[in-house]
Amino acid sequence: MQGFFQLISTAEFLGLLDRFPPLATERVPLARGLGRILADEVTSPEALPPFARATMDGFAVRARDTFGCSDSEPALLTIAGEIAMGRAGSELALLPGQAATIWTGGALPSQADSVVMVEYSHRLDERTVEIQRPVAPGDNVIREGEDYAHDAVVLRRGHQLRPQDLGVLAGIGITSVAVHRRPRVAIISTGDELIPPERQPAPGQIRDINSTTLAALVEECGGEAVALGITSDSPEELSEACRKALALPADAVLLSGGSSVGRRDFTLEVFARLEHTEVLAHGVSIRPGKPTILARRDNIAFFGLPGHVGSAIVVFHLLVRPLLRRLAGAADDGLRRIRAVTSEQIPSVVGREDYVRVALHQEDAPRRVTATPVYGKSGLLNPLVRADGLLIIKRDTEGLDEGEEAEVLLFPGHHPAGLATY
Amino acid sequence: MQGFFQLISTAEFLGLLDRFPPLATERVPLARGLGRILADEVTSPEALPPFARATMDGFAVRARDTFGCSDSEPALLTIAGEIAMGRAGSELALLPGQAATIWTGGALPSQADSVVMVEYSHRLDERTVEIQRPVAPGDNVIREGEDYAHDAVVLRRGHQLRPQDLGVLAGIGITSVAVHRRPRVAIISTGDELIPPERQPAPGQIRDINSTTLAALVEECGGEAVALGITSDSPEELSEACRKALALPADAVLLSGGSSVGRRDFTLEVFARLEHTEVLAHGVSIRPGKPTILARRDNIAFFGLPGHVGSAIVVFHLLVRPLLRRLAGAADDGLRRIRAVTSEQIPSVVGREDYVRVALHQEDAPRRVTATPVYGKSGLLNPLVRADGLLIIKRDTEGLDEGEEAEVLLFPGHHPAGLATY
Repeated sequence: MQGFFQLISTAEFLGLLDRFPPLATERVPLARGLGRILADEVTSPEALPPFARATMDGFAVRARDTFGCSDSEPALLTIAGEIAMGRAGSELALLPGQAATIWTGGALPSQADSVVMVEYSHRLDERTVEIQRPVAPGDNVIREGEDYAHDAVVLRRGHQLRPQDLGVLAGIGITSVAVHRRPRVAIISTGDELIPPERQPAPGQIRDINSTTLAALVEECGGEAVALGITSDSPEELSEACRKALALPADAVLLSGGSSVGRRDFTLEVFARLEHTEVLAHGVSIRPGKPTILARRDNIAFFGLPGHVGSAIVVFHLLVRPLLRRLAGAADDGLRRIRAVTSEQIPSVVGREDYVRVALHQEDAPRRVTATPVYGKSGLLNPLVRADGLLIIKRDTEGLDEGEEAEVLLFPGHHPAGLATY
Repeated sequence: MQGFFQLISTAEFLGLLDRFPPLATERVPLARGLGRILADEVTSPEALPPFARATMDGFAVRARDTFGCSDSEPALLTIAGEIAMGRAGSELALLPGQAATIWTGGALPSQADSVVMVEYSHRLDERTVEIQRPVAPGDNVIREGEDYAHDAVVLRRGHQLRPQDLGVLAGIGITSVAVHRRPRVAIISTGDELIPPERQPAPGQIRDINSTTLAALVEECGGEAVALGITSDSPEELSEACRKALALPADAVLLSGGSSVGRRDFTLEVFARLEHTEVLAHGVSIRPGKPTILARRDNIAFFGLPGHVGSAIVVFHLLVRPLLRRLAGAADDGLRRIRAVTSEQIPSVVGREDYVRVALHQEDAPRRVTATPVYGKSGLLNPLVRADGLLIIKRDTEGLDEGEEAEVLLFPGHHPAGLATY
């Protein structure tokens, strides 16, 4: 028996996570940068584009040579040559009355300041072109440095890299980025009744579900999971598993099962007795997930999670995920939220946040999303598979009426069927 | 010169993708299953749980022994023993008037049909317990097979695996899954002006952005990208690059640049001349992205994408991504959509779909999301970095008024700042 919970709110718990600083930085090539989080601001090492470029196929001109021209009174220009793709604009200098053939992306010749689209030109012969519409200086041209000036800020610290970001970095010649190291997370399941999934359970035994689930949750939010297997409900085995995690070394340790206040719940005791380890929290006023423990040794976070996988998933999204994102340098938890209306009354109690598994579906008419609770006895797995997210009932409400609007945390990596638009 | 476009709608284009069947299946262990798509229905090979389990700490009882009891008139039961975690329920059989100590997850002893929570019991001595509330048969118990019956459907074909799904599979002893092979996608950039990102451009040269961007887009939607580098604008080099892609072998080939109808646009010609290759489309009535080509050789898809990276990204999300998802066995494009209202008037023309890059922000009061166009000259990169998604203007509208509602495709893997709820 571990005594009693000292319940704190989720906000208080999240505040405790501020004690864990982001991880060290490392450089990775762009090809391994997708989804990583920038540890530093990125500025452009050069002007982009490095030269004035055409944005259309057509003729590079001096704009004033086209002023006043029209279909009926075209401007007649002499074709001085062609700027082939990849050639310097300085290879050709336009004199007054001259034009040069140019292609989208090509470098403007010297003295040219604009491009006439090919659609508004008519080539009379090899040397002469009629221009049917006037252009202003800068028309159909990107000026040198117009995209990014030298030293301009391209991406900010804490930004999570998307494909387009990586492309822009390639464009300015940046081929590697400084990002925070991915958090390494040790995963331990405890329970005398547990066996690995590949084994056939003897009567009374159950396969370990949490190791697989928590490892995938860690992977999904960008961490590296190291599953340390199953321990029995003994303080000695639990301590030994925690020491293994420290030796990895791990940045965070997730120990599921044994976090409550029952006779078999040794997690708190084990954390408290680890050298140089401080217990920061035991008990959070949420349901499910109340028996959650947070401890800290140096910058390593030890979580005691509920043994039931449904509760462990809730605690992971609410309390573990924000830490892993923080360690990786992100400012948010990376979860998407939507507003939905309840399909039925959902009871709760004041003073506790409830996270209710819900299935979502879209109603056509007012384009609203309906959240239907996926009930099931505690301990059942099948409701997990049927749920799309977690509906939040706040601390200060006694529950929700049918048709009331609430926020839903969407499980990541999932696209509820029929929910095309919201 | 490649002649003229024969514009088709996006719906027509997507219809053409039906000609490409999903890829072969392979088995992967659960640890590599996250985000993969099930090629077969999964049924439970056994009943889960395999035995009746307690869902609470307390006392396993025969429910009828508790009928009518209360705080003032508790039922007095004899403690016959304890079911330790991981031990078979058959180790103990309850006689009338007996109870057994049990823990959450423990196996019910023979003849027990329910569990009294420890909170509603009072232990008088080692052998005797007072029960203060009656229970009904099945209370605080999960029956054998209540979660999944033998042969029950657990997950359907086409389902994309989430952490909780993998956990449930582990729980029923399924340690590997049949999924469709990840699509392998060859990426080719064409342009005489292009150089690799790590090189310093000479005057007139530009670094290749599309290879990096398209490779990350492919990776983001679960494919394996193979960047084949840069080719010049010559039909011979392009043909050679396509043959390299066939030799990989690739399931899809993305060739960006050269897909339009200009003098330097050889992609269509090259596709048309590849042996056993049929051109299915040249031109889609969308903006940007009009000069898009689709060709087919056996089950290999050849895409000609616009050269400008901003347009190539739009075409990827709209037309390439659905193919890659289809090849991987998914029924949807995996993109999230939200409704947003426009911050200003946005013009368009009837008969064409427009995809306008927008930044999103949330307004507090009516919790609506506002979409602000991120304009910028064609060819600029910085608008790509500033946008959160693509606002869709449908074929049958002339544009949107300020404050009008429209659908926005969210760029994946990105969480617009301040957009906590929608």
